Amino acid sequence: VIESNAVPDPDVVQVDAGAGEYSVSVGPGQLDRIGAFVVGLAGVHRCAVISDSTVEKLYGARVTDSIQGAGVSCEIFTFEAGEARKTRKVWSILTDALLDGGFGRDSLVVALGGGVTGDLAGFVAATYMRGLPVLQVPTSVVAMVDSSVGGKTGVDTAAGKNLVGSFHPPVAVMIDPEVVRTLPTDQRSEGWVEAVKHGAIVDAAYFDSLEAEGPQLVAGEGDAVRRAVLRSVQIKAAVVSDDEKEGGARMALNFGHTLGHAIEAVSEYAMGHGSAVALGMLLEAELGERLGVTEPGTAQRLAGALQAIEISARLSDPCSLEAIEDFLARDKKAREGTPRFVLLRRIGEVDREFGWTRAVPREDIKAVLRSTWLSN
Amino acid sequence: VIESNAVPDPDVVQVDAGAGEYSVSVGPGQLDRIGAFVVGLAGVHRCAVISDSTVEKLYGARVTDSIQGAGVSCEIFTFEAGEARKTRKVWSILTDALLDGGFGRDSLVVALGGGVTGDLAGFVAATYMRGLPVLQVPTSVVAMVDSSVGGKTGVDTAAGKNLVGSFHPPVAVMIDPEVVRTLPTDQRSEGWVEAVKHGAIVDAAYFDSLEAEGPQLVAGEGDAVRRAVLRSVQIKAAVVSDDEKEGGARMALNFGHTLGHAIEAVSEYAMGHGSAVALGMLLEAELGERLGVTEPGTAQRLAGALQAIEISARLSDPCSLEAIEDFLARDKKAREGTPRFVLLRRIGEVDREFGWTRAVPREDIKAVLRSTWLSN
Repeated sequence: VIESNAVPDPDVVQVDAGAGEYSVSVGPGQLDRIGAFVVGLAGVHRCAVISDSTVEKLYGARVTDSIQGAGVSCEIFTFEAGEARKTRKVWSILTDALLDGGFGRDSLVVALGGGVTGDLAGFVAATYMRGLPVLQVPTSVVAMVDSSVGGKTGVDTAAGKNLVGSFHPPVAVMIDPEVVRTLPTDQRSEGWVEAVKHGAIVDAAYFDSLEAEGPQLVAGEGDAVRRAVLRSVQIKAAVVSDDEKEGGARMALNFGHTLGHAIEAVSEYAMGHGSAVALGMLLEAELGERLGVTEPGTAQRLAGALQAIEISARLSDPCSLEAIEDFLARDKKAREGTPRFVLLRRIGEVDREFGWTRAVPREDIKAVLRSTWLSN
Repeated sequence: VIESNAVPDPDVVQVDAGAGEYSVSVGPGQLDRIGAFVVGLAGVHRCAVISDSTVEKLYGARVTDSIQGAGVSCEIFTFEAGEARKTRKVWSILTDALLDGGFGRDSLVVALGGGVTGDLAGFVAATYMRGLPVLQVPTSVVAMVDSSVGGKTGVDTAAGKNLVGSFHPPVAVMIDPEVVRTLPTDQRSEGWVEAVKHGAIVDAAYFDSLEAEGPQLVAGEGDAVRRAVLRSVQIKAAVVSDDEKEGGARMALNFGHTLGHAIEAVSEYAMGHGSAVALGMLLEAELGERLGVTEPGTAQRLAGALQAIEISARLSDPCSLEAIEDFLARDKKAREGTPRFVLLRRIGEVDREFGWTRAVPREDIKAVLRSTWLSN
């Protein structure tokens, strides 16, 4: 058992998700504090840790040791790493494994891993005997700064990503920024894109600090990582607390994502989510500038920040322009066929002249897509 | 279009499910009022009616006509009737059919059918793009008096019934008691068992009226059905409003279900849910009397009411006693191996000396199981 005084107190951010408050703890050593947290949960007598094959090798034993060391029964369930496993089939297999293991309503699911694990294990928890509590323990940058907070869970289908799932807020999120060190560099860069988005939509000073500290963040240096994760969690927590189920403030988080999702889908997911969103943000900033909504020079500032976190976002194949336009026409956020966008007013502020989103004429979208790629 | 003044005003019961209020309307002709209801729902532009092959033939066109007549686009999706279809596989097929049909977040799911349809279509809605609204339109007695109110959705797995699912309260429940006429007689009898349970746990006068009106209820006579459905809905609504997610008052609804589930499972579902619960109630009343908790003669009164609704509950095979005891040891509601029971104090009142449930020594359970069957 790790002595509790060996681990410094974490920073704690409260999220009020309507269905119940939960806290997000950010601090080095949190991985070793999971057992101490679990033992304090009323009604929980068993833990099912769900992790992927990569993260399980790195951190599985440390987490199960912490839980068992606190005197709580614990088993780990592993699936093969990769977005391709975020399916109803793997969800079924994990559910059946828990049922075979005799896990009842007195169980806690611990989601240990990146965004795929959080979404998949969260959906197992959401649908197991009509809902088990889930503890989110994100180990990737994107899961720390984005997907572990907010309660979205789900899986992909042939028709698209995240089309099957539910809102199931966690009982808590525990973030150990030191695990970022063990990620591949490009995964770190991809993850910081969502942090840049947080700065772009609500906090210009944070945006500037991300650009200034880009090299440390990409290197995974503990203190820079801790501070950025904390600020992003604060922003995400504030937004989802205002708007649990997406219809108001949460819409702002879609900045860069209307075009980002289209680009990602058209690349058949060969392009990472972060890179696609980075490109989406640049294009949506160009779009806002073209429409006179976004302060001139904003796209240029975004490009600078993205460069600092070592994202070079560009589309390899200009022939896919039409495919992107087709995708937009079918996007689930589109209302009656007209794509809607979150546009910036300037770095740190979203335009709200017509609510959180505005419909943009197809000609302007086409013009921005074409001009931007031609200039690359 | 049916003229609205051709349909009498329904009785309306409010349910406060924490996540949001909804109303249950009970009245003849409600099936023709679905379109008028749907057109008033903000943000809903399309309907996906989900029904089974039997109910679709009887009422599918009437419901889609009502919705289309109100000017809302509507498609019907049908699965083969039967509890055997309440699976993750059929849930996936229905989900994919809606995705292929391009249903987006502006869609409403209409669950038209009995308990299987309500649970299955409710689970499709709960997990489609993280939750579409669902309108429950129950067409069986058991769905009207029990399963359509309360927000439970889910499917069965090889490991047991309702092990995968979620809480997803409907936007409304619309009940047309006249459809009860088209059910087979034995399905009506099975359904009224849950109504007898409602009387037994909270309303002795209602219990007496069910016994008195048994013949009309079994025959499906409109006004008797309407009054009984309304009273059961009021009771269920009061209970689930107090306790959305089962931990307090809702526990009382489990009267007869600890043994009922065991009997149903051991029969490999050859015995209907209503018959199994009827037998479970009789046995749990005997158990309560044996323990000195339940007023003597209560089991006898239950037997009278069950006879009035033409349920003759008995186990065909006394050799399954051990199987029932084994099942109880693994029941998900058991805590640390001791089965817990909701016991009556008398008809119309649940014993609460030790909370909503109490642990009962195995010897007493065995004794009741054995003596009761030996006397049959």
